[in-house]
Amino acid sequence: MLIAIDLLGTLAFAITGASKAIQHKLDWLGVIILAVTTGVGGGIIRDIMLGSTPPVAIKSSMYIITCIAAAAITLGAKRIVSASWKWVLIADALGLGFFTAVGASKAALLEGGPVAIILMATITASGGGMLRDMLVGEIPQVLKSDFYATAAIAGGILFVLLEPLGITSIDTKMLITTLFTFALRVFAMRHKIHLPHAE
Amino acid sequence: MLIAIDLLGTLAFAITGASKAIQHKLDWLGVIILAVTTGVGGGIIRDIMLGSTPPVAIKSSMYIITCIAAAAITLGAKRIVSASWKWVLIADALGLGFFTAVGASKAALLEGGPVAIILMATITASGGGMLRDMLVGEIPQVLKSDFYATAAIAGGILFVLLEPLGITSIDTKMLITTLFTFALRVFAMRHKIHLPHAE
Amino acid sequence: MLIAIDLLGTLAFAITGASKAIQHKLDWLGVIILAVTTGVGGGIIRDIMLGSTPPVAIKSSMYIITCIAAAAITLGAKRIVSASWKWVLIADALGLGFFTAVGASKAALLEGGPVAIILMATITASGGGMLRDMLVGEIPQVLKSDFYATAAIAGGILFVLLEPLGITSIDTKMLITTLFTFALRVFAMRHKIHLPHAE
Repeated sequence: MLIAIDLLGTLAFAITGASKAIQHKLDWLGVIILAVTTGVGGGIIRDIMLGSTPPVAIKSSMYIITCIAAAAITLGAKRIVSASWKWVLIADALGLGFFTAVGASKAALLEGGPVAIILMATITASGGGMLRDMLVGEIPQVLKSDFYATAAIAGGILFVLLEPLGITSIDTKMLITTLFTFALRVFAMRHKIHLPHAE
Repeated sequence: MLIAIDLLGTLAFAITGASKAIQHKLDWLGVIILAVTTGVGGGIIRDIMLGSTPPVAIKSSMYIITCIAAAAITLGAKRIVSASWKWVLIADALGLGFFTAVGASKAALLEGGPVAIILMATITASGGGMLRDMLVGEIPQVLKSDFYATAAIAGGILFVLLEPLGITSIDTKMLITTLFTFALRVFAMRHKIHLPHAE
Repeated sequence: MLIAIDLLGTLAFAITGASKAIQHKLDWLGVIILAVTTGVGGGIIRDIMLGSTPPVAIKSSMYIITCIAAAAITLGAKRIVSASWKWVLIADALGLGFFTAVGASKAALLEGGPVAIILMATITASGGGMLRDMLVGEIPQVLKSDFYATAAIAGGILFVLLEPLGITSIDTKMLITTLFTFALRVFAMRHKIHLPHAE
């Protein structure tokens, strides 16, 4: 079940990377590289920062294979992917929630403080998308006008607060964090919520 | 005292990051992310390269809290920050000097050779600013026309030379390197010194 | 002999970095930074991902000195470098082949699976060039229209296949991988082979 959510999230992240590559008219390899970077980039940065190398996405082949599959699907079934973009965004939001919980719990296991937990949650969930945008020369979307990394930060804060609230099981914490972050992201998409801009 | 300089430097670095974010009309989160990246990015890259993970800026919460405070100050007191920009640059130069000394001494403690010491000094002092510029789609300022990383390189070289000159105390080396790099940077700003351009 | 190929490849990579810096009218330090980033960036990312820190390019001074020499040559003998650009590309292809083999064998020594081996081969060979392009605000060439990282991927796949084909000596594997990747890259340059684009 956990692995299914993990791979579904990776797949959705990678599809957004492959789609961006196609928009920018990259070649096939470019599509694969953007799919891989978006799908596993956040987790790799997190593992490098926590000193847990080689990163899990490199040790275990299935993540990168999932990303390559996402590139193939996006290239081969472009219309179907476009037509079901709503579902890609839902799966992406589920990935966002799950990766937030994974990042927070990895940092917590290594006895990181609240700041480290929230930072690792955010980086796991949004680092891949930032690399994706930078690779094609765009200012990362999360810096401009999106309630995306914000949902991950809120999820990370909730994860930290659950302990003093008496919830100590790591599995329960992960479940609540995943669902909360997912719901917050979907709510923000539906109601077009953005952070205020610096004037 | 050392911690005060460290946090003052981090604050100044982070304010330049937050100001750049405001120039580019990022949202509040973008301002915070640029402040954090500029304030602690160089030290994080250094610690990752030296294998000293998790990076100190993640283990100890006060660095990131300082960066978030810098973002809040820059957003909330924009006019005051603009009006005292000269002082931001002085504090930034002090940070440059101190981070150069910290990078050099960390590499020296791990028995790095002269090249490693100079490289780590430079990356600690200018890596955050490079990430800041790349995140908003600019060519990093240090590559173009600034006597900034150059001052850090000069500081790193001085640090290496102090040992054969008979100065072996790490504290004395750090103090001299900080003051020298700070003075060189301030001198270069005042006299508008630049490196020659490649034609 | 191996060290000669290694440094020749680093030199060629660094010359492409320095040349790109000159095209973009960076200052001298910018030329050096791009030379160093292109020459050793791929290997540094690989070593960080594999947890083998400090990276070999930082521990051993000769790599960075080679890159600085490349910057000096490119700045000082610009016409000669331009006139012998064909030879730079040949040396670059040799570097591509050798770095592919080094990346693959480092991952194999750490008991990485096929995906890890191919990924590390590709990152070692093309990571520096990607950073080079990103630093000057270009979309990395390998994402767009080049048979460059593709040659490294093919080399990595070959390296993986040699084991089941009965070739177990790491030296023989590295030699075959280097020559194959080099030949493939030169062939692709001569015949202007590109990957198809995403429409």
